[in-house]
Amino acid sequence: MFGHFHETKWRLDRSPAMAGDFRWQNGFIAVDWGTTNRRAWMVAAGGQAHEILDDSLGVLKIEDGGFPAEIASIRQHHGEEPVLLAGMIGSNRGWIEAPYVPAPASLDAIVAAIRWPQDGVGIVPGVSYRSGRDADVMRGEEVQIFGALAEELAPRDGLLCHPGTHAKWVRMESGAIGPFRSVMTGELFSTLSRHGILIDRLQEDVFPNDDFRAGAEHGLAHDDLTAELFSIRARYLLGVGACDNASYASGLLIGADVRIGLAFGGTGPIALIGRPDLTALYAEALRLAGRDATQIDGEHAFLLGARAIAERLT
Amino acid sequence: MFGHFHETKWRLDRSPAMAGDFRWQNGFIAVDWGTTNRRAWMVAAGGQAHEILDDSLGVLKIEDGGFPAEIASIRQHHGEEPVLLAGMIGSNRGWIEAPYVPAPASLDAIVAAIRWPQDGVGIVPGVSYRSGRDADVMRGEEVQIFGALAEELAPRDGLLCHPGTHAKWVRMESGAIGPFRSVMTGELFSTLSRHGILIDRLQEDVFPNDDFRAGAEHGLAHDDLTAELFSIRARYLLGVGACDNASYASGLLIGADVRIGLAFGGTGPIALIGRPDLTALYAEALRLAGRDATQIDGEHAFLLGARAIAERLT
Repeated sequence: MFGHFHETKWRLDRSPAMAGDFRWQNGFIAVDWGTTNRRAWMVAAGGQAHEILDDSLGVLKIEDGGFPAEIASIRQHHGEEPVLLAGMIGSNRGWIEAPYVPAPASLDAIVAAIRWPQDGVGIVPGVSYRSGRDADVMRGEEVQIFGALAEELAPRDGLLCHPGTHAKWVRMESGAIGPFRSVMTGELFSTLSRHGILIDRLQEDVFPNDDFRAGAEHGLAHDDLTAELFSIRARYLLGVGACDNASYASGLLIGADVRIGLAFGGTGPIALIGRPDLTALYAEALRLAGRDATQIDGEHAFLLGARAIAERLT
Repeated sequence: MFGHFHETKWRLDRSPAMAGDFRWQNGFIAVDWGTTNRRAWMVAAGGQAHEILDDSLGVLKIEDGGFPAEIASIRQHHGEEPVLLAGMIGSNRGWIEAPYVPAPASLDAIVAAIRWPQDGVGIVPGVSYRSGRDADVMRGEEVQIFGALAEELAPRDGLLCHPGTHAKWVRMESGAIGPFRSVMTGELFSTLSRHGILIDRLQEDVFPNDDFRAGAEHGLAHDDLTAELFSIRARYLLGVGACDNASYASGLLIGADVRIGLAFGGTGPIALIGRPDLTALYAEALRLAGRDATQIDGEHAFLLGARAIAERLT
């Protein structure tokens, strides 16, 4: 059941001793429990964090009523520390639903809305955004965002992007999550690489190379994504401009994503929070769009955010 | 092996007696043999056409070397008439490859490039387009296009659209297929309705209703397709503006498709050739874009095109 273990990778070196609930000061377990995967870390009182779990037991794989046994199993292996759960485990497909906190959403508002299915086991809620017919949701990204903010890695006012299956562009307003918008970039790339006419063209790894840049330039400058994707197939059949098709397609989707995200507003550098391979691709596309970016490792940001939440528990 | 049979549906009432090869004047079998399906019709000398085959034995389901036996089986059931084959059967995954005819492609050029794997059995080639890095391909649509032209259902100069898995926008130039562009609208809708986060929202039938129109208006006016698709999920989760999500998503994709197609150039009414349910949706999106459209049944057009080709065989 338990996946591979990692050495201590992160040291959350924020100096003040934890305030609030005494139990959380002695360390806790932070779990990012998504739809198809879960990862967990032990965060020690001194700030050392090490991964204790990385497997594919996402919420969809846990049977009805199976979450208490999973928590008991984690504690049996790793100790009786309190547990902070984030991600889709708080959705209507998870353990219990932690209703979305509406944007603008501060860290305090999120902490106040944590659900407690068991004593010492909290589920962080997601965030929703509504304005007229504009609507969006996130679950899990909010922890990373507030983690980056807690260490001043991301600005309290400005534009932030979290690449992934559903990339999120977020306008931070006075330290709160303001309006945000999701783009299905990761899901579309993944789906196109597994189904349909482009399968054979999208099996290679993606790199921020010249072909990625050509795709990103196209995606940034043109609004013809659903046509340009087919061109990849046609160029291959006709032997036109042989290139690294997977990187070109990724560039195309990310270029369109960045175009949408930048139209969403905000000036100044963009804080990119997420998997380093993805933030590198987005940083490259942003560079082509003439914008600076700061890359923040999503795992580090998650742990910083979990700790920022734990500090506020009373 | 043989699917359901249809009554005579079409009468190809072009008056002149067929010229050219005597054998084709006594009627022939026309087959639209695609990747996953095939359909065949008997076209009598008098112009009556009736469907004789409609099954899922697409080219990918025929074993290596299996095509002669399939042709023999069709003839055993329906007579020794000559056979005209079109569609993916002429691709590198089909029987034998009928290389693309480069655009601008006239009907005469296509007829001249027909491949003959057996005496009296012809495979119609597809058409390719290249200009710099622009590249596109079609296989099967060319027969429908020239069928519509033969009966003056579509203009010899102007913009034409063939909706489908990969919708084609074609600029007709002096009666030849000129520059054209494919848009992955049908494939994307189909894929999104079978995989990923929108599955549950895309199971209903699509109609050109108010929700379709709202989606089409958005797709015509905005270039944020990959974000707006996610909004469908978010609105549902937040209970914002309950609507017929499948029709909205279809409208969104078709609106973006029409925006790309109209940017491709051409004035005047657009000839829509294809499945009547699809041409109706595209006609509605074109109406919202302020453009007139003529709808032409793709089956009828295919038979007219097959006959126009048969008339030219010598």
